[in-house]
Amino acid sequence: MKVLEGFGVSKVLASDNPHFRPGDLISGFTGWEECSLILKTEQLRKIQMDEKIPLSYHLGLLGMPGFTAYTGFYEVCSPKRGESVFVSAASGAVGQLVGQLAKLHGCFVVGSAGTEQKVDLLKNKLGFDDAFNYKEETDMAEALKRYFPEGIDIYFDNVGGATLDAVLMNMRIGGRIAVCGMISQQSLSNPEGIHNLFSLISKRVRMQGFLQSDYLHLFPQFLDCIGELYKKGKITYIEDMSEGLESAPAAFVGLFFGQNVGKQVVCVSRE
Amino acid sequence: MKVLEGFGVSKVLASDNPHFRPGDLISGFTGWEECSLILKTEQLRKIQMDEKIPLSYHLGLLGMPGFTAYTGFYEVCSPKRGESVFVSAASGAVGQLVGQLAKLHGCFVVGSAGTEQKVDLLKNKLGFDDAFNYKEETDMAEALKRYFPEGIDIYFDNVGGATLDAVLMNMRIGGRIAVCGMISQQSLSNPEGIHNLFSLISKRVRMQGFLQSDYLHLFPQFLDCIGELYKKGKITYIEDMSEGLESAPAAFVGLFFGQNVGKQVVCVSRE
Repeated sequence: MKVLEGFGVSKVLASDNPHFRPGDLISGFTGWEECSLILKTEQLRKIQMDEKIPLSYHLGLLGMPGFTAYTGFYEVCSPKRGESVFVSAASGAVGQLVGQLAKLHGCFVVGSAGTEQKVDLLKNKLGFDDAFNYKEETDMAEALKRYFPEGIDIYFDNVGGATLDAVLMNMRIGGRIAVCGMISQQSLSNPEGIHNLFSLISKRVRMQGFLQSDYLHLFPQFLDCIGELYKKGKITYIEDMSEGLESAPAAFVGLFFGQNVGKQVVCVSRE
Repeated sequence: MKVLEGFGVSKVLASDNPHFRPGDLISGFTGWEECSLILKTEQLRKIQMDEKIPLSYHLGLLGMPGFTAYTGFYEVCSPKRGESVFVSAASGAVGQLVGQLAKLHGCFVVGSAGTEQKVDLLKNKLGFDDAFNYKEETDMAEALKRYFPEGIDIYFDNVGGATLDAVLMNMRIGGRIAVCGMISQQSLSNPEGIHNLFSLISKRVRMQGFLQSDYLHLFPQFLDCIGELYKKGKITYIEDMSEGLESAPAAFVGLFFGQNVGKQVVCVSRE
C-alpha cells in the first residue's frame, strides 16, 4: 500500500541532505500522513518564513495555484489595460488571484462561481467588477452577453465544458483563452463536446494550454511580487481550512462538487 | 435579385476611376457573370502580369488562398526546421502551398486528402513526405500515430471536426494548431463536438484562429516571395478549372464533397 501524495507544507524533523536542516520549513509533495519520509528532495522548496504571511499560504497564494495564476495571466493572456476579463471558478485557489491581478492591471473583471456565498466573496471581498452564479443561468452564452455586451478579451478557463463553449460565442476579435483546467470534465470518462470552435477563426482567437511548471525560472520573481502585494494589502486570499488528517478525503471529494470556499487546505498538525 | 459574388480575375473594360484603365487586369470580388459593374473599387487589386505565371494563379497561388497559406504558416505556426507538420485538405487551394512551404522550411510534412488521386498528387507531385486518404481510416487518431510516432508539432487545420479531435490526441509538447477552416462542419447546423481539448493543457498547445485579411501589410512581400519560388520551379500549383459560367454552381457545390482536385477555378471567358 502506498500513501497518497499531495502538495504540502512541512517542517523538517531529520535530514541527511545538507540543504535541509531540522526545523526548516519546506513545501512540496508529501504524504497524506503526519510524518513523511521524503526521498525525492530535489523537488522540495525551502520556505522563507515571513510572520506577516500565514504558512498555509505557501500552498495557495504563494504556492502552485498562485504561481499558476501569475504565469497564466501575465505569460499566457498578454493582458492590456482596459481589457475585459472573464474568470471561471473565480473564487477558487487560482481564479481568485487571476481576478485580482487583472484588476491591478487595469482590466474589467467578471467571475463565475457556483454558490451565492462565493459570488458575494467575489464582489465584496475580492474586488471583481461583477460576478454571477453559473448554476442559476439557464443560458450561459446569454448570461455572458449581459456581463460583456462588447465581448470578452481574455478568458481564464478553469472549467472547460459548457462554459468554454458559451465563452467562445462571446469572444472579441483578437481575444485570448488561457486553458488552465477543465474541472467540469474531470470526472467524465467521455468529455463533453465543444461545438463553437469556429469562432476561433472569425474572432482570430488564440487559445493556449499551459502548466506552471514550464515557467519555474519566474518563481522567485513571483514570490517577491505577490508577497509584496499581499503585505501591502493590495491582494487578499481566501482559504478553506479543514482540521485533521481524517478530514482530508472528504475535503478532496468536496472539490469536485465545489464545496470548498477558496483554496482547500487540510491542517494535519499545527506548530 | 442580386448577382452572386466570388473572388475573380477580370479585365477592365471601362472605368471612371483613374487608378484603373481599360485593359488593366484586376483581382477582387466580382459577380458570377460575364461583365460586372464594380462599385467598391477600393477592394480591387491590380495584377502585374507576368507571362511565366498563369493569370488564374492570381485566384489561388498568388491570391487569397496562397496568402492564407503564407500568413498561416509563417505568422501563426511559428515553424522551426525539423518539426513535424500535418496538413488536412492538403491538396486544396491552401493546403498544397502550406505543405510545400513547410518542406522548403525543412519540416517533415504529411497531408490528408479524400481520394487516391489526391494522395498520389501529394506524394508524387507536391513533395509531401507522406500522405493518406482519411476516408480509408477507421481510426484517425491511430492513423496519425502511424505517420507521426513522435507526435505533431504543427497542425494546419482546414477541416475541423473529427480530424481536429484526433490531432489533439497526437500533439507534441509545445505544439501549435493554426485554425484556418472547418469545412467538415460547414454544412452542419449543429457542429460536431470536439472532445479532446484537455490535451491543450497537458501538451501546452497553442491553437489560433486567423484570417489572411489581418496581414494585408505582408501582401507585397508574399507576392515577391511566392512568385519567385514558383518561377524558380521550387513550388508547383494544381488547379481544377471548369469551363463556362454555367459550370460554376456545380463546381461550387462540388467543393463541399471534395470533388475538386486542387484550387477550384471557373473560367468564364478567355482573353
